[in-house]
Amino acid sequence: MYFPSWLSQLYRGLSRPIRRTTQPIWGSLYRSLLQSSQRRIPEFSSFVVRTNTCGELRSSHLGQEVTLCGWIQYRRQNTFLVLRDFDGLVQVIIPQDESAASVKKILCEAPVESVVQVSGTVISRPAGQENPKTEALRLQYRYLDLRSFQMQYNLRLRSQMVMKMREYLCNLHGFVDIETPTLFKRTPGGAKEFLVPSREPGKFYSLPQSPQQFKQLLMVGGLDRYFQVARCYRDEGSRPDRQPEFTQIDIEMSFVDQTGIQSLIEGLLQYSWPNDKDPVVVPFPTMTFAEVLATYGTDKPDTRFGMKIIDISDVFRNTEIGFLQDALSKPHGTVKAICIPEGAKYLKRKDIESIRNFAADHFNQCSLLGKLRLECADLLETRGVVLRDPTLFSFLWVVDFPLFLPKEENPRELESAHHPFTAPHPSDIHLLYTEPKKARSQHYDLVLNGNEIGGGSIRIHNAELQRYILATLLKEDVKMLSHLLQALDYGAPPHGGIALGLDRLICLVTGSPSIRDVIAFPKSFRGHDLMSNTPDSVPPEELKPYHIRVSKPTDSKAERAH
Amino acid sequence: MYFPSWLSQLYRGLSRPIRRTTQPIWGSLYRSLLQSSQRRIPEFSSFVVRTNTCGELRSSHLGQEVTLCGWIQYRRQNTFLVLRDFDGLVQVIIPQDESAASVKKILCEAPVESVVQVSGTVISRPAGQENPKTEALRLQYRYLDLRSFQMQYNLRLRSQMVMKMREYLCNLHGFVDIETPTLFKRTPGGAKEFLVPSREPGKFYSLPQSPQQFKQLLMVGGLDRYFQVARCYRDEGSRPDRQPEFTQIDIEMSFVDQTGIQSLIEGLLQYSWPNDKDPVVVPFPTMTFAEVLATYGTDKPDTRFGMKIIDISDVFRNTEIGFLQDALSKPHGTVKAICIPEGAKYLKRKDIESIRNFAADHFNQCSLLGKLRLECADLLETRGVVLRDPTLFSFLWVVDFPLFLPKEENPRELESAHHPFTAPHPSDIHLLYTEPKKARSQHYDLVLNGNEIGGGSIRIHNAELQRYILATLLKEDVKMLSHLLQALDYGAPPHGGIALGLDRLICLVTGSPSIRDVIAFPKSFRGHDLMSNTPDSVPPEELKPYHIRVSKPTDSKAERAH
Repeated sequence: MYFPSWLSQLYRGLSRPIRRTTQPIWGSLYRSLLQSSQRRIPEFSSFVVRTNTCGELRSSHLGQEVTLCGWIQYRRQNTFLVLRDFDGLVQVIIPQDESAASVKKILCEAPVESVVQVSGTVISRPAGQENPKTEALRLQYRYLDLRSFQMQYNLRLRSQMVMKMREYLCNLHGFVDIETPTLFKRTPGGAKEFLVPSREPGKFYSLPQSPQQFKQLLMVGGLDRYFQVARCYRDEGSRPDRQPEFTQIDIEMSFVDQTGIQSLIEGLLQYSWPNDKDPVVVPFPTMTFAEVLATYGTDKPDTRFGMKIIDISDVFRNTEIGFLQDALSKPHGTVKAICIPEGAKYLKRKDIESIRNFAADHFNQCSLLGKLRLECADLLETRGVVLRDPTLFSFLWVVDFPLFLPKEENPRELESAHHPFTAPHPSDIHLLYTEPKKARSQHYDLVLNGNEIGGGSIRIHNAELQRYILATLLKEDVKMLSHLLQALDYGAPPHGGIALGLDRLICLVTGSPSIRDVIAFPKSFRGHDLMSNTPDSVPPEELKPYHIRVSKPTDSKAERAH
Repeated sequence: MYFPSWLSQLYRGLSRPIRRTTQPIWGSLYRSLLQSSQRRIPEFSSFVVRTNTCGELRSSHLGQEVTLCGWIQYRRQNTFLVLRDFDGLVQVIIPQDESAASVKKILCEAPVESVVQVSGTVISRPAGQENPKTEALRLQYRYLDLRSFQMQYNLRLRSQMVMKMREYLCNLHGFVDIETPTLFKRTPGGAKEFLVPSREPGKFYSLPQSPQQFKQLLMVGGLDRYFQVARCYRDEGSRPDRQPEFTQIDIEMSFVDQTGIQSLIEGLLQYSWPNDKDPVVVPFPTMTFAEVLATYGTDKPDTRFGMKIIDISDVFRNTEIGFLQDALSKPHGTVKAICIPEGAKYLKRKDIESIRNFAADHFNQCSLLGKLRLECADLLETRGVVLRDPTLFSFLWVVDFPLFLPKEENPRELESAHHPFTAPHPSDIHLLYTEPKKARSQHYDLVLNGNEIGGGSIRIHNAELQRYILATLLKEDVKMLSHLLQALDYGAPPHGGIALGLDRLICLVTGSPSIRDVIAFPKSFRGHDLMSNTPDSVPPEELKPYHIRVSKPTDSKAERAH
């Protein structure tokens, strides 16, 4: 018996298929609501023949004999069926051996939605199975998953929250909702951009990662205050919890400074925040990039809990402990500590061991202390301490990022820390001509509970400065951006903006484990739509108008051999 | 001297570039507003040295000597410059012959925004010129064009109207705003769909023409009332006044019938209609497909004026006029007439001649009478009769379309008149099994002033019926739609919906000559972004991850030769 534990959480409150259902299960929806607010699972299997509910099975049940009761949701090729009860789904392997022929006959012939009782041993999904992801079934039958209480709640909350944002921007603050193209030009080095072949041989559109250029051009065009709930595209192959298409609340304003954008966003979130959550308190605290790194060891700290990093170098100035002496004798050498409150009470010997190992594994990575802080928080929480209250929303502005970073492949060259249109910090403009590496930017990030949920900047509106940064400092080919530079030449107002990642924000607000739970039809890890089998092959004659041919990997190997 | 007459209309009220401008031109914005409301062009060239304004030149000026005054907007390769005044733009060819060397020197060296006076002969743009479209310059400098009064008005009106639509749907009627994917599966025979290569060899996404499948799946998923301001894609090469990406107000409802959708849309348009226009009167009149064809000779009639088609066969039953006798003796032979009110007064001999020629040119086309009606209206309007009041908005529902049409390439086979998910008319279901060609559908179109601005239908929610229509009647490969059929199997509520073409609607509301005037960054006729030079070539190494190669047209010729 497989158990898609992912499924179990969100299939609560499955609606009633109209065919052959023996009794409605709406009642369970309210029970599961109650259940989640009580945070304690009642004994749903007392007094009855079943030992467990379908949604209850976890890895701790592996190897146990269990009895489940429910409806046949689905059957595939007479090899397995999916059993559903009010609480979740479980995959049941249909026995194939001769001795179980009668059981097999019953299970294979019973109509879908028949009620059955199944006894068997809980196993984990066999390795190399065709559909290795427990989430795959949810995505394949997304139209059924959408009936669940949780998906209905998530999508309706998303719609309402976006509607409130629009009211705030459009009706209260005079923003203009403007749609920008998604068939656009490749950006220089835009290796993460999907391509769209055109009917002109060798010419391609590209699906942009954001409307950045367009929103700046709108400011040049005098639109003054722009926003868009913008579909964006990024081809990152199979990075977990990323989607090839995603949505951002995209904003740009003329004649604004950093504090203006910050106040706008604080008001936006306060106004649009769901009524069933604690209200958002504004203004949000602000820390500089240097401060967050020193205090939390990351630029997106979870500020719901303390355990800050403390510099205790002074305590050890005259120490005789060898490795501390060593560390302090190096340039910029420091000794830092994290205090774990009541750590001695909660952490066991093996926890300390795992912390030690974790530190050894990440030795010499500057983000070690930030990771260690989260690792310790994980450990404390497994021991029952509530550090990160899921009902708490802790916002933080991070400002004064560096404008440039050394290029990874060639550290003597510079690349933009964010993008090349970011304005330098007003106090650091002179550094551009002397020590550009030290220049700070007017970029700002919005962080919520340890997640970056937005970022933006005041932009460069002076064409000369933009040309200097692109051509002289970044050594970019300015030809591809000549339209933008020319636009700045024609008189651009001072302007700035921000983009909020809507999927991530809604995911945090609803407390969902994945952004796939706040998107109606998400792609799987590997960018597939499992419901419709997308992407799919295309007959060669449909490729012809686009003047492209498929070159199989073997072809390109052959090419390399040439 | 070239004259982009398109430009002249919308460059009125150009804002002031900040460099080297001798005086602000804001004043002209209000003058041009005044001008448009008076509908009579004042004598802007009286008392001064110029003979014409830049925006005034039309084909009637060809060959004339004119003198223009204005600012140098732009200069290209010392071959031409663009001259701007308050009223519009004109291209000026810089003389290249020796005798005009001093003029050339002045024109090539004067800084942009210098004020000049130019005399010359008006010519039309030479054939084979690099930028043959007069609109090209507006699109190339879109960020300047956006500063014009008209573009600001159009984009702000669009934003406000869409916001009101959202309020009506979301806040007043409980619709859920749900984003559906744009990276989806190719639809069978979807030759107008852009392809997006994926990182899996030979596998492609496709950009859908509408969220049709998704919105039906949302109904199966119990979302009940869905809407989306949806970006859609259609690759139609270079059809005029179409855009490769466009926007529709996409709506779907469960447990609804045709009249329910109609009332919803009437309320939606009434609620969102701009305050500066006459209010929308509801309900809209409804005509059947058969009626509109008989009365107006088209399924999208302009009902702002009469001149209906009248069957006068009875008058001629006993005629002795040969060609009428001939016509009436044929099966379904009729004699039809259009009465042109005061035609004798307004139409001249050459008008009658042109009507006769038009009829001869379109002889034997069943849409002839509809076209003739519009042709007569055009003629009357050039003679000063106001038939189609631009401030009047005349809506019409057209219903009872046929469900199927004979396939063009093989008239014995059927294809869907709209799409295969359209439900048959309840009275005609029996015809599906006997005479499917005669079955009417539950499709409806919304027509405004002779333009189709929306269409929708009640959908098939019964899987058996859907399978029968797809497989038996349409001979489609149902495998590509198996997810949709399976979803219907799992219990779909009766449902229906509609999509309004937002670009076209806003175009009509604002009285714009082209949908490009209501889109911030439209593509040109040929699908190009002239500002950024899109689509563009891509280095071969960026094609590799997508396993495609460009096959130049010569390659495919070579292939065919094999």
